[in-house]
Amino acid sequence: MTYSVGLLVRTGLVMISDSRTNAGVDNISTYRKMTVWENPGERVIVALSAGNLAVTQAALQLMNEGMPTGSGRISMKNVTSMSEAARLAGWALREVDHIDGPSLRNSGVGFSASLLLGGQIAGRQLRMFQVYAEGNFIQVMSETPYLQIGEFKYGKPIIDRVVRFDSSLATAAKCGLVSMDSTIKSNLSVAPPIHLLVYERDSLHVKVHAVMQDDDPYWQSLRRTWDAGLHDRFAQLPDPAWIT
Amino acid sequence: MTYSVGLLVRTGLVMISDSRTNAGVDNISTYRKMTVWENPGERVIVALSAGNLAVTQAALQLMNEGMPTGSGRISMKNVTSMSEAARLAGWALREVDHIDGPSLRNSGVGFSASLLLGGQIAGRQLRMFQVYAEGNFIQVMSETPYLQIGEFKYGKPIIDRVVRFDSSLATAAKCGLVSMDSTIKSNLSVAPPIHLLVYERDSLHVKVHAVMQDDDPYWQSLRRTWDAGLHDRFAQLPDPAWIT
Repeated sequence: MTYSVGLLVRTGLVMISDSRTNAGVDNISTYRKMTVWENPGERVIVALSAGNLAVTQAALQLMNEGMPTGSGRISMKNVTSMSEAARLAGWALREVDHIDGPSLRNSGVGFSASLLLGGQIAGRQLRMFQVYAEGNFIQVMSETPYLQIGEFKYGKPIIDRVVRFDSSLATAAKCGLVSMDSTIKSNLSVAPPIHLLVYERDSLHVKVHAVMQDDDPYWQSLRRTWDAGLHDRFAQLPDPAWIT
Repeated sequence: MTYSVGLLVRTGLVMISDSRTNAGVDNISTYRKMTVWENPGERVIVALSAGNLAVTQAALQLMNEGMPTGSGRISMKNVTSMSEAARLAGWALREVDHIDGPSLRNSGVGFSASLLLGGQIAGRQLRMFQVYAEGNFIQVMSETPYLQIGEFKYGKPIIDRVVRFDSSLATAAKCGLVSMDSTIKSNLSVAPPIHLLVYERDSLHVKVHAVMQDDDPYWQSLRRTWDAGLHDRFAQLPDPAWIT
Protein backbone atom coordinates (compact mmCIF):
# COMPACT_ATOMS: atom_id res chain seq x y z
CA MET A 1 0.00 0.00 0.00
CA THR A 2 0.85 3.66 0.06
CA TYR A 3 -0.01 6.88 1.76
CA SER A 4 0.27 10.10 -0.21
CA VAL A 5 -1.20 13.51 0.47
CA GLY A 6 -1.24 16.80 -1.43
CA LEU A 7 -2.14 20.09 0.24
CA LEU A 8 -2.89 23.17 -1.84
CA VAL A 9 -2.92 26.39 0.19
CA ARG A 10 -3.01 30.06 -0.74
CA THR A 11 0.77 30.35 -0.93
CA GLY A 12 1.55 27.07 -2.68
CA LEU A 13 1.55 23.31 -2.80
CA VAL A 14 2.91 20.56 -0.56
CA MET A 15 3.10 16.96 -1.74
CA ILE A 16 4.20 14.07 0.47
CA SER A 17 4.52 10.35 -0.18
CA ASP A 18 5.93 7.28 1.50
CA SER A 19 8.02 4.65 -0.28
CA ARG A 20 6.76 1.21 0.70
CA THR A 21 5.55 -1.22 -1.91
CA ASN A 22 4.33 -4.63 -0.92
CA ALA A 23 3.01 -7.73 -2.57
CA GLY A 24 2.00 -9.47 0.62
CA VAL A 25 3.85 -8.96 3.88
CA ASP A 26 6.66 -11.28 2.80
CA ASN A 27 7.56 -9.18 -0.20
CA ILE A 28 8.14 -5.54 0.65
CA SER A 29 10.37 -3.09 -1.16
CA THR A 30 11.15 0.58 -1.45
CA TYR A 31 9.94 2.49 -4.52
CA ARG A 32 9.60 6.22 -4.88
CA LYS A 33 6.03 7.25 -5.60
CA MET A 34 6.79 10.87 -6.46
CA THR A 35 7.58 11.90 -10.04
CA VAL A 36 8.56 15.50 -10.85
CA TRP A 37 8.59 17.25 -14.23
CA GLU A 38 10.36 20.55 -13.68
CA ASN A 39 11.53 23.13 -16.19
CA PRO A 40 12.51 26.02 -13.93
CA GLY A 41 10.72 29.24 -14.84
CA GLU A 42 8.28 27.36 -17.07
CA ARG A 43 6.67 24.39 -15.30
CA VAL A 44 6.53 22.25 -12.20
CA ILE A 45 4.33 19.15 -12.32
CA VAL A 46 4.34 16.55 -9.55
CA ALA A 47 2.65 13.15 -9.59
CA LEU A 48 2.11 10.90 -6.57
CA SER A 49 0.94 7.39 -7.28
CA ALA A 50 -0.86 4.63 -5.38
CA GLY A 51 -2.16 1.22 -6.33
CA ASN A 52 -0.73 -1.58 -8.45
CA LEU A 53 2.94 -0.66 -9.05
CA ALA A 54 3.09 -2.16 -12.55
CA VAL A 55 0.02 -0.12 -13.52
CA THR A 56 1.26 3.19 -12.12
CA GLN A 57 4.78 2.76 -13.51
CA ALA A 58 3.35 2.03 -16.96
CA ALA A 59 1.04 5.04 -16.75
CA LEU A 60 3.84 7.37 -15.62
CA GLN A 61 5.98 6.11 -18.50
CA LEU A 62 3.18 6.96 -20.94
CA MET A 63 2.72 10.39 -19.32
CA ASN A 64 6.43 10.99 -19.80
CA GLU A 65 6.62 9.69 -23.39
CA GLY A 66 3.42 11.42 -24.38
CA MET A 67 0.21 10.76 -26.24
CA PRO A 68 0.56 10.63 -30.03
CA THR A 69 -1.41 13.33 -31.87
CA GLY A 70 -1.44 14.53 -35.48
CA SER A 71 1.28 17.06 -34.68
CA GLY A 72 3.65 15.12 -32.42
CA ARG A 73 3.30 13.98 -28.82
CA ILE A 74 1.63 15.64 -25.84
CA SER A 75 3.53 14.75 -22.66
CA MET A 76 4.02 16.19 -19.19
CA LYS A 77 6.93 18.10 -20.68
CA ASN A 78 4.75 20.14 -23.04
CA VAL A 79 1.14 20.14 -21.81
CA THR A 80 -0.06 23.73 -21.72
CA SER A 81 -2.24 23.59 -18.60
CA MET A 82 -2.74 21.47 -15.51
CA SER A 83 -6.15 20.32 -16.69
CA GLU A 84 -4.49 19.09 -19.88
CA ALA A 85 -2.00 17.30 -17.60
CA ALA A 86 -4.91 15.66 -15.75
CA ARG A 87 -6.50 14.56 -19.05
CA LEU A 88 -3.13 13.16 -20.15
CA ALA A 89 -2.86 11.18 -16.89
CA GLY A 90 -6.40 9.88 -17.40
CA TRP A 91 -5.55 8.85 -20.95
CA ALA A 92 -2.41 7.06 -19.73
CA LEU A 93 -4.36 5.08 -17.11
CA ARG A 94 -6.97 4.10 -19.71
CA GLU A 95 -4.24 2.98 -22.10
CA VAL A 96 -2.70 0.77 -19.43
CA ASP A 97 -6.14 -0.58 -18.54
CA HIS A 98 -6.71 -1.35 -22.23
CA ILE A 99 -3.43 -3.30 -22.41
CA ASP A 100 -3.17 -4.90 -18.96
CA GLY A 101 -6.66 -4.65 -17.47
CA PRO A 102 -8.14 -7.86 -18.94
CA SER A 103 -5.26 -10.05 -17.71
CA LEU A 104 -5.36 -8.44 -14.27
CA ARG A 105 -9.11 -8.98 -13.97
CA ASN A 106 -8.78 -12.55 -15.26
CA SER A 107 -6.44 -13.39 -12.40
CA GLY A 108 -8.67 -11.61 -9.89
CA VAL A 109 -6.16 -8.83 -9.15
CA GLY A 110 -8.30 -5.99 -10.44
CA PHE A 111 -7.04 -2.76 -11.95
CA SER A 112 -6.13 -0.43 -9.10
CA ALA A 113 -4.36 2.89 -9.45
CA SER A 114 -4.78 6.48 -8.42
CA LEU A 115 -2.71 9.58 -8.90
CA LEU A 116 -2.41 12.98 -7.30
CA LEU A 117 -1.25 15.50 -9.86
CA GLY A 118 -0.30 19.01 -8.79
CA GLY A 119 1.62 21.87 -10.27
CA GLN A 120 1.70 25.01 -12.33
CA ILE A 121 2.67 26.05 -15.85
CA ALA A 122 3.84 29.60 -16.71
CA GLY A 123 0.89 31.99 -17.03
CA ARG A 124 -1.58 29.43 -15.65
CA GLN A 125 -3.07 28.62 -12.26
CA LEU A 126 -1.57 26.34 -9.63
CA ARG A 127 -3.90 23.33 -9.48
CA MET A 128 -4.10 19.84 -8.05
CA PHE A 129 -6.13 16.84 -9.24
CA GLN A 130 -6.88 13.33 -8.12
CA VAL A 131 -6.99 11.01 -11.13
CA TYR A 132 -8.91 7.76 -10.69
CA ALA A 133 -8.11 4.36 -12.19
CA GLU A 134 -11.00 4.94 -14.62
CA GLY A 135 -9.18 7.99 -16.01
CA ASN A 136 -11.57 10.67 -14.76
CA PHE A 137 -10.53 13.16 -12.11
CA ILE A 138 -11.50 15.73 -9.50
CA GLN A 139 -9.85 19.04 -8.68
CA VAL A 140 -9.05 20.21 -5.18
CA MET A 141 -11.05 23.23 -4.03
CA SER A 142 -10.29 25.74 -1.30
CA GLU A 143 -13.08 24.46 1.01
CA THR A 144 -11.15 21.20 1.47
CA PRO A 145 -7.63 22.08 0.40
CA TYR A 146 -6.18 18.59 0.38
CA LEU A 147 -6.40 15.23 -1.38
CA GLN A 148 -5.17 11.84 -0.22
CA ILE A 149 -4.59 8.48 -1.90
CA GLY A 150 -3.81 5.05 -0.50
CA GLU A 151 -4.15 4.36 3.23
CA PHE A 152 -5.76 7.71 3.97
CA LYS A 153 -7.89 7.13 7.06
CA TYR A 154 -5.27 7.06 9.83
CA GLY A 155 -3.89 10.47 8.85
CA LYS A 156 -7.13 12.25 7.95
CA PRO A 157 -8.37 13.51 11.36
CA ILE A 158 -5.32 15.71 12.03
CA ILE A 159 -5.53 17.36 8.59
CA ASP A 160 -9.26 17.95 9.05
CA ARG A 161 -8.48 19.69 12.33
CA VAL A 162 -5.53 21.81 11.28
CA VAL A 163 -5.24 22.69 7.59
CA ARG A 164 -7.25 25.45 5.91
CA PHE A 165 -6.69 27.17 2.54
CA ASP A 166 -5.14 30.10 4.45
CA SER A 167 -2.68 27.92 6.35
CA SER A 168 1.00 28.62 5.66
CA LEU A 169 3.11 26.32 3.52
CA ALA A 170 5.04 25.37 6.66
CA THR A 171 1.81 24.42 8.46
CA ALA A 172 0.67 22.38 5.48
CA ALA A 173 4.03 20.61 5.30
CA LYS A 174 4.19 19.93 9.03
CA CYS A 175 0.60 18.70 9.16
CA GLY A 176 1.17 16.46 6.16
CA LEU A 177 4.21 14.97 7.90
CA VAL A 178 2.30 14.46 11.17
CA SER A 179 -0.43 12.77 9.15
CA MET A 180 2.24 10.51 7.60
CA ASP A 181 3.66 9.79 11.07
CA SER A 182 0.23 8.69 12.39
CA THR A 183 -0.21 6.43 9.38
CA ILE A 184 3.21 4.85 9.73
CA LYS A 185 2.58 4.24 13.46
CA SER A 186 -0.54 2.18 12.74
CA ASN A 187 0.02 0.63 9.30
CA LEU A 188 2.98 -1.53 8.31
CA SER A 189 2.35 -1.02 4.60
CA VAL A 190 3.45 2.62 4.79
CA ALA A 191 7.10 3.44 5.46
CA PRO A 192 9.99 5.86 4.83
CA PRO A 193 11.81 7.27 3.02
CA ILE A 194 9.34 10.14 2.93
CA HIS A 195 9.37 12.41 -0.11
CA LEU A 196 8.39 16.00 0.70
CA LEU A 197 8.00 18.51 -2.10
CA VAL A 198 7.18 22.16 -1.46
CA TYR A 199 6.23 24.56 -4.23
CA GLU A 200 5.59 28.31 -3.79
CA ARG A 201 2.73 29.59 -5.93
CA ASP A 202 3.91 31.37 -9.11
CA SER A 203 7.58 30.54 -8.43
CA LEU A 204 7.76 27.93 -11.24
CA HIS A 205 10.55 26.03 -9.55
CA VAL A 206 10.65 23.40 -6.81
CA LYS A 207 11.47 25.07 -3.49
CA VAL A 208 12.14 21.88 -1.53
CA HIS A 209 12.36 18.24 -2.49
CA ALA A 210 13.49 16.45 0.63
CA VAL A 211 13.87 12.68 0.90
CA MET A 212 13.77 11.78 4.57
CA GLN A 213 15.01 8.43 5.79
CA ASP A 214 13.83 7.19 9.16
CA ASP A 215 16.86 8.73 10.86
CA ASP A 216 16.46 12.15 9.25
CA PRO A 217 17.03 14.66 12.09
CA TYR A 218 14.02 16.86 11.22
CA TRP A 219 11.66 13.91 10.78
CA GLN A 220 12.85 12.45 14.09
CA SER A 221 12.49 15.76 15.89
CA LEU A 222 8.98 16.29 14.47
CA ARG A 223 7.85 12.78 15.48
CA ARG A 224 9.33 13.07 18.97
CA THR A 225 7.90 16.53 19.62
CA TRP A 226 4.46 15.53 18.39
CA ASP A 227 4.37 12.31 20.38
CA ALA A 228 5.49 14.06 23.57
CA GLY A 229 2.99 16.87 22.95
CA LEU A 230 0.12 14.41 22.49
CA HIS A 231 0.97 12.57 25.68
CA ASP A 232 1.28 15.85 27.55
CA ARG A 233 -2.06 17.14 26.30
CA PHE A 234 -3.73 13.79 26.79
CA ALA A 235 -2.68 13.91 30.45
CA GLN A 236 -4.46 17.25 30.77
CA LEU A 237 -7.84 16.01 29.53
CA PRO A 238 -10.66 16.48 32.04
CA ASP A 239 -11.45 13.42 34.14
CA PRO A 240 -14.94 11.94 33.89
CA ALA A 241 -17.18 12.41 36.92
CA TRP A 242 -17.10 8.72 37.85
CA ILE A 243 -13.37 8.90 38.68
CA THR A 244 -13.11 8.45 42.40
CA MET B 1 -21.07 1.89 9.51
CA THR B 2 -19.99 1.83 13.10
CA TYR B 3 -17.03 2.45 15.31
CA SER B 4 -16.66 0.43 18.48
CA VAL B 5 -13.65 -0.16 20.66
CA GLY B 6 -12.98 -2.28 23.72
CA LEU B 7 -9.96 -1.73 25.98
CA LEU B 8 -8.95 -4.32 28.55
CA VAL B 9 -6.46 -3.01 31.11
CA ARG B 10 -5.10 -4.38 34.38
CA THR B 11 -7.87 -2.80 36.45
CA GLY B 12 -10.81 -3.48 34.16
CA LEU B 13 -12.64 -3.08 30.91
CA VAL B 14 -13.88 -0.11 28.89
CA MET B 15 -16.28 -0.55 25.98
CA ILE B 16 -17.40 2.29 23.73
CA SER B 17 -19.70 2.39 20.71
CA ASP B 18 -21.38 4.96 18.50
CA SER B 19 -25.03 4.75 17.41
CA ARG B 20 -25.24 5.51 13.72
CA THR B 21 -26.70 3.00 11.31
CA ASN B 22 -26.92 3.76 7.64
CA ALA B 23 -28.20 2.12 4.49
CA GLY B 24 -26.76 4.69 2.13
CA VAL B 25 -26.31 8.34 3.09
CA ASP B 26 -30.00 9.02 2.52
CA ASN B 27 -31.12 6.54 5.13
CA ILE B 28 -29.43 7.05 8.49
CA SER B 29 -30.82 6.19 11.88
CA THR B 30 -29.81 5.77 15.49
CA TYR B 31 -29.48 2.28 16.94
CA ARG B 32 -27.66 1.28 20.07
CA LYS B 33 -24.87 -1.17 19.37
CA MET B 34 -24.14 -2.08 22.98
CA THR B 35 -25.94 -4.95 24.69
CA VAL B 36 -25.37 -5.72 28.35
CA TRP B 37 -26.17 -8.88 30.31
CA GLU B 38 -25.66 -8.04 33.96
CA ASN B 39 -26.51 -10.02 37.06
CA PRO B 40 -24.79 -7.99 39.78
CA GLY B 41 -22.37 -10.08 41.82
CA GLU B 42 -22.52 -12.92 39.31
CA ARG B 43 -21.88 -11.73 35.73
CA VAL B 44 -21.31 -8.79 33.45
CA ILE B 45 -21.19 -9.50 29.71
CA VAL B 46 -21.11 -6.71 27.14
CA ALA B 47 -21.47 -7.08 23.36
CA LEU B 48 -20.69 -4.36 20.80
CA SER B 49 -21.82 -5.03 17.26
CA ALA B 50 -20.86 -3.84 13.77
CA GLY B 51 -21.95 -4.81 10.27
CA ASN B 52 -25.35 -5.58 8.79
CA LEU B 53 -27.92 -4.52 11.41
CA ALA B 54 -30.39 -7.28 10.57
CA VAL B 55 -27.62 -9.85 10.99
CA THR B 56 -26.32 -8.51 14.32
CA GLN B 57 -29.81 -8.01 15.77
CA ALA B 58 -30.73 -11.58 14.86
CA ALA B 59 -27.48 -12.91 16.36
CA LEU B 60 -27.96 -10.93 19.58
CA GLN B 61 -31.50 -12.25 19.84
CA LEU B 62 -30.19 -15.82 19.54
CA MET B 63 -27.48 -15.11 22.11
CA ASN B 64 -30.18 -13.87 24.46
CA GLU B 65 -32.64 -16.72 23.84
CA GLY B 66 -29.92 -19.31 23.94
CA MET B 67 -28.71 -22.35 22.06
CA PRO B 68 -30.88 -25.47 22.56
CA THR B 69 -29.02 -28.37 24.18
CA GLY B 70 -30.16 -31.71 25.61
CA SER B 71 -30.61 -30.10 29.02
CA GLY B 72 -32.17 -26.72 28.21
CA ARG B 73 -30.74 -23.60 26.63
CA ILE B 74 -27.30 -22.03 26.92
CA SER B 75 -27.61 -18.26 26.71
CA MET B 76 -25.63 -15.19 27.77
CA LYS B 77 -27.59 -15.37 31.01
CA ASN B 78 -26.16 -18.75 32.03
CA VAL B 79 -22.88 -19.39 30.15
CA THR B 80 -20.27 -20.38 32.70
CA SER B 81 -17.23 -18.67 31.18
CA MET B 82 -16.36 -15.89 28.73
CA SER B 83 -14.94 -18.38 26.24
CA GLU B 84 -18.27 -20.20 26.34
CA ALA B 85 -19.88 -16.80 25.69
CA ALA B 86 -17.63 -16.32 22.65
CA ARG B 87 -18.53 -19.78 21.34
CA LEU B 88 -22.22 -18.97 21.85
CA ALA B 89 -21.79 -15.73 19.87
CA GLY B 90 -20.02 -17.65 17.10
CA TRP B 91 -22.82 -20.20 17.04
CA ALA B 92 -25.42 -17.40 16.82
CA LEU B 93 -23.66 -15.78 13.86
CA ARG B 94 -23.42 -19.13 12.07
CA GLU B 95 -27.12 -19.78 12.68
CA VAL B 96 -28.01 -16.40 11.17
CA ASP B 97 -25.69 -17.07 8.25
CA HIS B 98 -27.38 -20.44 7.75
CA ILE B 99 -30.82 -18.79 7.60
CA ASP B 100 -30.11 -15.42 5.93
CA GLY B 101 -26.69 -15.77 4.32
CA PRO B 102 -27.81 -17.34 0.99
CA SER B 103 -30.38 -14.58 0.31
CA LEU B 104 -27.92 -11.86 1.25
CA ARG B 105 -25.25 -13.29 -1.02
CA ASN B 106 -27.79 -13.75 -3.85
CA SER B 107 -28.54 -10.05 -3.81
CA GLY B 108 -24.84 -9.16 -3.60
CA VAL B 109 -25.05 -7.75 -0.06
CA GLY B 110 -22.75 -10.27 1.57
CA PHE B 111 -22.87 -11.44 5.14
CA SER B 112 -21.10 -8.88 7.29
CA ALA B 113 -21.02 -8.79 11.06
CA SER B 114 -18.53 -8.61 13.87
CA LEU B 115 -18.83 -8.47 17.62
CA LEU B 116 -16.72 -7.42 20.55
CA LEU B 117 -17.60 -9.46 23.58
CA GLY B 118 -16.15 -8.57 26.96
CA GLY B 119 -16.93 -9.35 30.54
CA GLN B 120 -16.49 -11.54 33.56
CA ILE B 121 -18.39 -14.30 35.34
CA ALA B 122 -18.00 -15.00 39.09
CA GLY B 123 -14.85 -16.98 39.82
CA ARG B 124 -13.55 -16.60 36.25
CA GLN B 125 -11.20 -14.23 34.42
CA LEU B 126 -12.13 -10.92 32.85
CA ARG B 127 -11.76 -11.46 29.10
CA MET B 128 -12.59 -9.83 25.79
CA PHE B 129 -13.06 -11.40 22.35
CA GLN B 130 -13.61 -10.27 18.80
CA VAL B 131 -16.05 -12.63 17.09
CA TYR B 132 -15.95 -12.70 13.29
CA ALA B 133 -18.85 -13.14 10.87
CA GLU B 134 -17.60 -16.69 10.29
CA GLY B 135 -18.16 -17.49 13.97
CA ASN B 136 -14.54 -17.90 15.02
CA PHE B 137 -12.87 -15.45 17.38
CA ILE B 138 -9.70 -13.99 18.86
CA GLN B 139 -8.98 -12.95 22.41
CA VAL B 140 -7.36 -9.68 23.41
CA MET B 141 -3.90 -10.05 24.96
CA SER B 142 -1.98 -7.67 27.20
CA GLU B 143 0.57 -6.77 24.48
CA THR B 144 -2.17 -5.01 22.51
CA PRO B 145 -4.87 -4.43 25.08
CA TYR B 146 -7.63 -3.29 22.74
CA LEU B 147 -9.88 -4.46 19.91
CA GLN B 148 -11.81 -2.38 17.40
CA ILE B 149 -14.63 -3.13 14.95
CA GLY B 150 -16.13 -1.04 12.15
CA GLU B 151 -14.42 2.15 10.96
CA PHE B 152 -11.32 1.56 13.04
CA LYS B 153 -8.53 3.33 11.16
CA TYR B 154 -9.19 6.99 12.02
CA GLY B 155 -9.08 6.33 15.74
CA LYS B 156 -6.28 3.77 15.87
CA PRO B 157 -3.15 5.97 16.01
CA ILE B 158 -4.04 7.68 19.29
CA ILE B 159 -4.76 4.35 21.02
CA ASP B 160 -1.49 2.92 19.70
CA ARG B 161 0.31 5.90 21.20
CA VAL B 162 -1.39 6.07 24.59
CA VAL B 163 -2.95 2.87 25.91
CA ARG B 164 -0.97 0.08 27.56
CA PHE B 165 -2.17 -2.82 29.72
CA ASP B 166 -1.01 -0.85 32.78
CA SER B 167 -2.98 2.27 31.84
CA SER B 168 -5.70 3.29 34.29
CA LEU B 169 -9.38 2.74 33.54
CA ALA B 170 -9.77 6.52 33.26
CA THR B 171 -6.96 6.70 30.69
CA ALA B 172 -8.48 3.85 28.72
CA ALA B 173 -11.91 5.52 28.79
CA LYS B 174 -10.57 8.95 27.83
CA CYS B 175 -8.41 7.54 25.04
CA GLY B 176 -11.32 5.51 23.70
CA LEU B 177 -13.45 8.65 23.66
CA VAL B 178 -10.71 10.68 21.92
CA SER B 179 -10.43 7.88 19.37
CA MET B 180 -14.22 8.08 18.86
CA ASP B 181 -13.97 11.87 18.49
CA SER B 182 -11.30 11.58 15.76
CA THR B 183 -13.46 9.05 13.92
CA ILE B 184 -16.59 11.19 14.13
CA LYS B 185 -14.62 14.22 12.88
CA SER B 186 -13.62 12.42 9.67
CA ASN B 187 -16.40 9.93 9.00
CA LEU B 188 -20.09 10.74 8.64
CA SER B 189 -21.13 7.14 9.20
CA VAL B 190 -20.14 7.30 12.88
CA ALA B 191 -22.17 9.50 15.25
CA PRO B 192 -23.48 9.96 18.79
CA PRO B 193 -25.04 9.04 21.11
CA ILE B 194 -21.91 7.41 22.47
CA HIS B 195 -22.30 4.46 24.81
CA LEU B 196 -19.50 4.19 27.37
CA LEU B 197 -19.36 1.23 29.71
CA VAL B 198 -16.73 0.89 32.44
CA TYR B 199 -16.21 -2.30 34.40
CA GLU B 200 -13.77 -2.73 37.30
CA ARG B 201 -12.05 -6.11 37.31
CA ASP B 202 -13.61 -8.59 39.77
CA SER B 203 -16.42 -6.16 40.73
CA LEU B 204 -19.11 -8.17 38.88
CA HIS B 205 -21.28 -5.12 38.35
CA VAL B 206 -21.27 -2.31 35.78
CA LYS B 207 -19.51 0.73 37.24
CA VAL B 208 -20.58 3.20 34.55
CA HIS B 209 -22.94 2.96 31.59
CA ALA B 210 -23.12 6.48 30.20
CA VAL B 211 -25.04 7.41 27.08
CA MET B 212 -23.64 10.69 25.81
CA GLN B 213 -25.56 12.81 23.34
CA ASP B 214 -23.66 15.35 21.30
CA ASP B 215 -24.38 18.06 23.89
CA ASP B 216 -23.24 15.99 26.88
CA PRO B 217 -21.12 18.36 29.00
CA TYR B 218 -18.29 15.90 29.59
CA TRP B 219 -18.12 14.81 25.94
CA GLN B 220 -18.11 18.46 24.84
CA SER B 221 -15.44 19.40 27.34
CA LEU B 222 -13.26 16.44 26.31
CA ARG B 223 -13.57 17.27 22.61
CA ARG B 224 -12.87 20.99 23.13
CA THR B 225 -9.89 20.40 25.40
CA TRP B 226 -8.37 17.84 23.04
CA ASP B 227 -8.86 19.97 19.94
CA ALA B 228 -7.36 23.04 21.64
CA GLY B 229 -4.48 20.94 22.96
CA LEU B 230 -3.72 19.52 19.51
CA HIS B 231 -3.71 22.97 17.93
CA ASP B 232 -1.52 24.30 20.72
CA ARG B 233 0.99 21.46 20.41
CA PHE B 234 0.90 21.56 16.64
CA ALA B 235 1.91 25.25 16.79
CA GLN B 236 4.95 24.22 18.83
CA LEU B 237 6.31 21.71 16.30
CA PRO B 238 9.80 22.51 15.07
CA ASP B 239 9.96 24.39 11.77
CA PRO B 240 11.75 22.73 8.86
CA ALA B 241 15.08 24.25 7.85
CA TRP B 242 13.69 25.62 4.56
CA ILE B 243 11.41 28.10 6.38
CA THR B 244 12.79 31.56 5.65
